[in-house]
Amino acid sequence: MSDIQKPGLARGMRDFGADELYAREHIFSTIRQVYQKYGFGPLETPAIENLSVLTGKYGEEGDKLLFKVLNSGPYLDDIDAAALSSKDYKKITPGITEKGLRYDLTVPLARYVAMNAHQLTFPFKRYQIDKVWRADRPQKGRYREFYQCDGDVIGSYSMMYDAECILIFDEVLGALGLPDFTIKINNRKILSGLAEAWGFTDKFGQFAIAIDKWDKIGENGVVQELGSRGFSETQIHQVQHLFRLAGTIEDKLKTLDTWFVNSKTGKKGIAELRELLSFLETVAPKKAILELDLKLARGLDYYTSTIFEVVLNEVQIGSIASGGRYDELTAGFGLPNMPGVGISFGAERIYDVLKQMNRLPQNHKNKVKALILNEGSEKEKSGFALLAYLRGENIAVEMYPSVEKSGKQYGYAEKKGINYVISLASGENGGEISVKNIISGEKQNTNWAALASLLNKEQ
Amino acid sequence: MSDIQKPGLARGMRDFGADELYAREHIFSTIRQVYQKYGFGPLETPAIENLSVLTGKYGEEGDKLLFKVLNSGPYLDDIDAAALSSKDYKKITPGITEKGLRYDLTVPLARYVAMNAHQLTFPFKRYQIDKVWRADRPQKGRYREFYQCDGDVIGSYSMMYDAECILIFDEVLGALGLPDFTIKINNRKILSGLAEAWGFTDKFGQFAIAIDKWDKIGENGVVQELGSRGFSETQIHQVQHLFRLAGTIEDKLKTLDTWFVNSKTGKKGIAELRELLSFLETVAPKKAILELDLKLARGLDYYTSTIFEVVLNEVQIGSIASGGRYDELTAGFGLPNMPGVGISFGAERIYDVLKQMNRLPQNHKNKVKALILNEGSEKEKSGFALLAYLRGENIAVEMYPSVEKSGKQYGYAEKKGINYVISLASGENGGEISVKNIISGEKQNTNWAALASLLNKEQ
Repeated sequence: MSDIQKPGLARGMRDFGADELYAREHIFSTIRQVYQKYGFGPLETPAIENLSVLTGKYGEEGDKLLFKVLNSGPYLDDIDAAALSSKDYKKITPGITEKGLRYDLTVPLARYVAMNAHQLTFPFKRYQIDKVWRADRPQKGRYREFYQCDGDVIGSYSMMYDAECILIFDEVLGALGLPDFTIKINNRKILSGLAEAWGFTDKFGQFAIAIDKWDKIGENGVVQELGSRGFSETQIHQVQHLFRLAGTIEDKLKTLDTWFVNSKTGKKGIAELRELLSFLETVAPKKAILELDLKLARGLDYYTSTIFEVVLNEVQIGSIASGGRYDELTAGFGLPNMPGVGISFGAERIYDVLKQMNRLPQNHKNKVKALILNEGSEKEKSGFALLAYLRGENIAVEMYPSVEKSGKQYGYAEKKGINYVISLASGENGGEISVKNIISGEKQNTNWAALASLLNKEQ
Repeated sequence: MSDIQKPGLARGMRDFGADELYAREHIFSTIRQVYQKYGFGPLETPAIENLSVLTGKYGEEGDKLLFKVLNSGPYLDDIDAAALSSKDYKKITPGITEKGLRYDLTVPLARYVAMNAHQLTFPFKRYQIDKVWRADRPQKGRYREFYQCDGDVIGSYSMMYDAECILIFDEVLGALGLPDFTIKINNRKILSGLAEAWGFTDKFGQFAIAIDKWDKIGENGVVQELGSRGFSETQIHQVQHLFRLAGTIEDKLKTLDTWFVNSKTGKKGIAELRELLSFLETVAPKKAILELDLKLARGLDYYTSTIFEVVLNEVQIGSIASGGRYDELTAGFGLPNMPGVGISFGAERIYDVLKQMNRLPQNHKNKVKALILNEGSEKEKSGFALLAYLRGENIAVEMYPSVEKSGKQYGYAEKKGINYVISLASGENGGEISVKNIISGEKQNTNWAALASLLNKEQ
């Protein structure tokens, strides 16, 4: 051991203890089971990827947030002396780092699919629930290490999968007991169609960014932003028409039909959306409200068709799940025309909401069910035999490790949330024992087999 | 997207697909369940730790193998210009890296216990099954990212926990179906006692390193090594006596008793070992052979008492699990006198052995049970309804996403290992369907409910 160090977590990092892990695992396993039921298999990619794989995929801002791993050995040997003396770190970094920590699960998926396309069965359906790392400024609810819970179907244009994504949102969030939620859908081609119909195809990106802010800055804010970006009054007026569209999804689509008489892209978007909805007419979401939100644009450039976002109706916490359809997942790795649709659950936000609403499971099935008191050398061995017997019956139990006053031993049980404390009336193996429920105070004499069946019933 | 990149894994990294992950999860969940039954709770520490926490804990060689994360921003600004111009990377590294990837799970545990001692309940029993990273030279069976499966009990000197470690080895490895194995035990105090009794306390480290090599270099090798390190002929002769000790564990201990008349440490080691064995007399391992191997020393300096190593009797693959007792887990973090005992399973080796022996589960319970053929627009919607019905019965099923020749659709089922293919005789919801077992070729007409119960029986 070296000199004494003050122990501390690295910035933006967290430890998770048992109670929190069991609650989080409840969320993860619910997501995992639903993915599996829908035919998704697990994939695990490594934490460390080549920076050549990661860089340039997340925009300039994203590149800055990549954690980069320093090369081993004399990493400065080949570095330009002038760059070193001018401390030009931007120029030096690529020479001293080759690897980085994954920033999301999508780029590693694309890398995996591109590498293994020849041996994969398409449509390839995978989920990955795993950590990602971002060198972001830590703040409330934002960490430098967090989980993503992704599911993607690669290699098919079928809208059946988009419909399944909606049913997966509905089933997972319903099973977790989240309060009422809405699944907002839109289609990027509809937004492109609007730009086409209203004559600002050249400013499509600015249009999408502006309307996506509607929730935050309101209609006036959007109007102002469009104005400042050179949209004409007529165009802004048309965009305002969009905000006034009301009625059922079909009502909205019928209006769009009339706007898209001359927009091929718009018509295609409507057709895709109607195809998706035809599946949901057969099997409707059980809990979610489904809403066609034509203001929904989503930031990521690679979405080309359906886009999703799930929000809680009564809790202002932003989206708790999202996703969309893309055409070119693996194009950056030399494999063009690979369409797919993917979704992701915001496990951190879901955890926060469920915790605040007291809807996380309090008792987990792996909890220690009983503590055997340590009553000294002779009974200790009998207690050890009872431990083995109960564990043989698949019951989680412990014995206190040393002879201490019973107050201390009971205290251990209480602090660990163990409800039953067992005392060995006789030292004999298989002999009579007494068991006390330390919550109710109830005490009874019993035998080993009866104790096992009592504890097995306990949640 | 940037320019096209050739997709590749970083050196020493691996992707795991579904079949391998299910097999690996079988190993992890077996370990996890046994830990939980013995009262261990999960702990999850972050992948990234401060280098101040990690450095100096693994020896000079270990420090070299730490993956270091480059600081963000203009990280060179405060670096000494002279060091930069001389490319003195060893001097520069501490100034440009503050964080690193964890190298094992023990040092983060020590950091966690030291930080949270005031609120933990002792004895604190935690397990962690998680990835660690080492910048080692990759070679067959050695990776730069791999899992460790650790369990530790912190805060107690009781030999009951050492006995439980042996029972955990026995139960996990037995449940996984590993071939016959031996749990070797020893006690560091016995080795210290020998050095005391034979007068080479000053050369204890060299003695321990030499005898630990017996398996590799044989008795002659050990004798040579001791000779070259300045042990006297008498001392070497005494060490050879050690190698000749035979008989039961108790026979060996009785001989040691006579050697340790004047060694307090040796006597203490014997007493600890006898105490441990007294628990195992009450509850014996079911499958393991237990062997007192006085040549067992183990490299890590922090072991102070019991040490364990598990090897297969017939397969030469090195140790598949190991561990030991220590007195000062958290001393490096300013919290002295924190004893404990910990073990770890070598999941990679266990996986390799089980795979080679064909003892990994072939069918996993999450497998997709059936594929519904896509027979066109009208039947497609009925198929979608059947999908939802079967998933409602908790059965993993898929429908083929588009109308293709049945050969292609059957091919998808075969490649994904799906055994049943379903065709919708009529397009009606709840109507008659035909189901074919594509392994036996057997075909039958049935209804939705009967299909659900058929598939639910399927492993």
